[in-house]
Amino acid sequence: MNNFQFFSPTEFVFGKGTENEAGYYVKKHGGTNVLLHFGGGSAVKSGLLGKVRASLEKEGISYSELGGVKPNPRDTLVYEGIELCRKKNIDFILAVGGGSVIDSAKAIAMGVPYDGDFWDFYSGKSPKAALPVATVLTIAAAGSEGSGDSVITKEDGGLKRGAGSDLIRPKFSIMDPELTCTLPPYQTACGATDIMAHVFERYFTNTTEVEITDRLCEAVLLTMIKETPRVIADPDNYDARANIMWAGTVAHTNIVGVGREQDWNSHGIEHELSALYDCAHGAGLAVIMPAWMEFVYKHNPLRFAQAATRIWGCQMDFEEPENTAREGIVRFRRFLRSIGMPLTFEELGAKAEDIPALVDKFGIGSGRTGGFVKLSADDITAIYKIAVDPELI
Amino acid sequence: MNNFQFFSPTEFVFGKGTENEAGYYVKKHGGTNVLLHFGGGSAVKSGLLGKVRASLEKEGISYSELGGVKPNPRDTLVYEGIELCRKKNIDFILAVGGGSVIDSAKAIAMGVPYDGDFWDFYSGKSPKAALPVATVLTIAAAGSEGSGDSVITKEDGGLKRGAGSDLIRPKFSIMDPELTCTLPPYQTACGATDIMAHVFERYFTNTTEVEITDRLCEAVLLTMIKETPRVIADPDNYDARANIMWAGTVAHTNIVGVGREQDWNSHGIEHELSALYDCAHGAGLAVIMPAWMEFVYKHNPLRFAQAATRIWGCQMDFEEPENTAREGIVRFRRFLRSIGMPLTFEELGAKAEDIPALVDKFGIGSGRTGGFVKLSADDITAIYKIAVDPELI
Repeated sequence: MNNFQFFSPTEFVFGKGTENEAGYYVKKHGGTNVLLHFGGGSAVKSGLLGKVRASLEKEGISYSELGGVKPNPRDTLVYEGIELCRKKNIDFILAVGGGSVIDSAKAIAMGVPYDGDFWDFYSGKSPKAALPVATVLTIAAAGSEGSGDSVITKEDGGLKRGAGSDLIRPKFSIMDPELTCTLPPYQTACGATDIMAHVFERYFTNTTEVEITDRLCEAVLLTMIKETPRVIADPDNYDARANIMWAGTVAHTNIVGVGREQDWNSHGIEHELSALYDCAHGAGLAVIMPAWMEFVYKHNPLRFAQAATRIWGCQMDFEEPENTAREGIVRFRRFLRSIGMPLTFEELGAKAEDIPALVDKFGIGSGRTGGFVKLSADDITAIYKIAVDPELI
Repeated sequence: MNNFQFFSPTEFVFGKGTENEAGYYVKKHGGTNVLLHFGGGSAVKSGLLGKVRASLEKEGISYSELGGVKPNPRDTLVYEGIELCRKKNIDFILAVGGGSVIDSAKAIAMGVPYDGDFWDFYSGKSPKAALPVATVLTIAAAGSEGSGDSVITKEDGGLKRGAGSDLIRPKFSIMDPELTCTLPPYQTACGATDIMAHVFERYFTNTTEVEITDRLCEAVLLTMIKETPRVIADPDNYDARANIMWAGTVAHTNIVGVGREQDWNSHGIEHELSALYDCAHGAGLAVIMPAWMEFVYKHNPLRFAQAATRIWGCQMDFEEPENTAREGIVRFRRFLRSIGMPLTFEELGAKAEDIPALVDKFGIGSGRTGGFVKLSADDITAIYKIAVDPELI
């Protein structure tokens, strides 16, 4: 196990009706003049935004509003948010939505006290300050409600990049699983895939002797395998929604990933897809991650066999562990298929002829890959090609 | 799943050599004049205290010292600590040791800004303020390095009681697994038993639909079952020590126990033993917890069968689930025996004739029991009696 630092100071407020406590928690965490940041119509139509507004008003907290965050959130709205916050002297940002809204809020939070271009933080620079951010979560997926991460896409050119800092870890996150019950099956499955991918990115590691985090990773994955089909079949199943929602947070505070090298190449390779085609991140991961697994499993077949036996319940083939390793990948694809996820470029709406451009944008030259297996441009090309025409279905 | 709030703001600094960063983190968290609180000679003899002192001096932080914390920490030293902190204008308490030292530090932290008797907080009152506390952990056991809990024993009369508040969650905890390598096998096993008990207290619940926390509980237990025998056989096994140390923290921040009713009767019943006989808390739990399981498993045999199959690897008896439930308890006792733990009153140095006094002190009348099965005084008597002469070994 490697040395590590772990810090997750977010106050999580979980359960039915907790969105009505938003104002109380803003006040508790020092907010007096809030930017309410949200996405499209669903938070308005569902009445959620109205409840949050009422809750702020009850506590005498003033607020401004900025809606319109899109999936794969854009830099353009971030610039608008930064300007608005400065003009209105905002001292607290409350994101009401899913990962995209939260990530956009985090970008604004870093940008407001910064003299330069906020994009610097998505190009490797560390922020020195940020406005406090908090969330009312509406989608179990990104884990952004408990993480210090944010991913933003440049409108001009479609560059999709991430930033990370403890400064943008939410002060509090309100998580009412009931809010996720209206989510359509496809988006629910995309979220579930993202949660599982967050765990797998940590699971496949070259660090040895990490039993506790292996087991915690497996705990989250086993939960997702049980609960996801239940909510696909019965969207109003509160308890299954609740288990998925907490699993999504646990998957990404990093408590299941400390003390080990992590991979994150599937996320990087996928980001180029969702940046180019504006597809759902989770759907892109369903196409890319098993392809990545197929490409790298021979690097450590026993680790993949461990995943296959402990997570997918495969019988271990002690004579040919590679068989077990491969069976685990097949089971993963079957599971993704069963919850309605795409598995191929075509099903995602991606095109094989774009592969050279995708690889180019991934920016191998800038040294972005490391992890479980360090990938060259040729390797990434090979992974995209597996995703065009996967064999093991 | 029940509604819950989860807040674990402690900054964990984990790994080899991290004790040398104590001064840096005290400064980062605002401490300028520190009380160094510790136990007996081991922290001095091992050179740990010297390293921590040097680290404080390097940062120009002044400090006073109060050693002498004993296992089952006493109120008398807490009073002394409170007085010392007031006299010296201490603004930060750094506990260097295991759970007893940390719990004593937490009690002092609550007592300093309080006009009344600190024992009020161990009798149900909530603190309004506390000095900041941080830890340099030397024993993987109590989980106090990441919890808002503290247990103190009254010197006069041996009453052992707990207090809890987010105010006493450590600001940071430095966790170097190497520091635990010198711990003798018996104390190592006591610590491991305590960690496992913290999980079982949460695992046996009447709350349904808690798959994510069930799986997280199982993750910690499976890790302990793998790693504990390794450190008993090879005390210097750093990686096994590291896995146990992080498992001990995860077991008790409550991340594995949110959203569910918890039990804690085994802890309560054990506390009377360690208060009366001054035995190790973990050893007392090894005697009491399986006895409690034997007494209550019929309340929900399938939950015990789940534990038996998922944690202990038992084959499920689908015709007679109670057989599987009982087999899990047998396996738990065998495991405890294999790591050198006592299983009976006699092995612990406890006396059957003291049972009425133990039950009396537990204070059923004050409504202290609830949880998985609500226990009467007769029930607790029965559990102590099982522990005198357990059947299933």
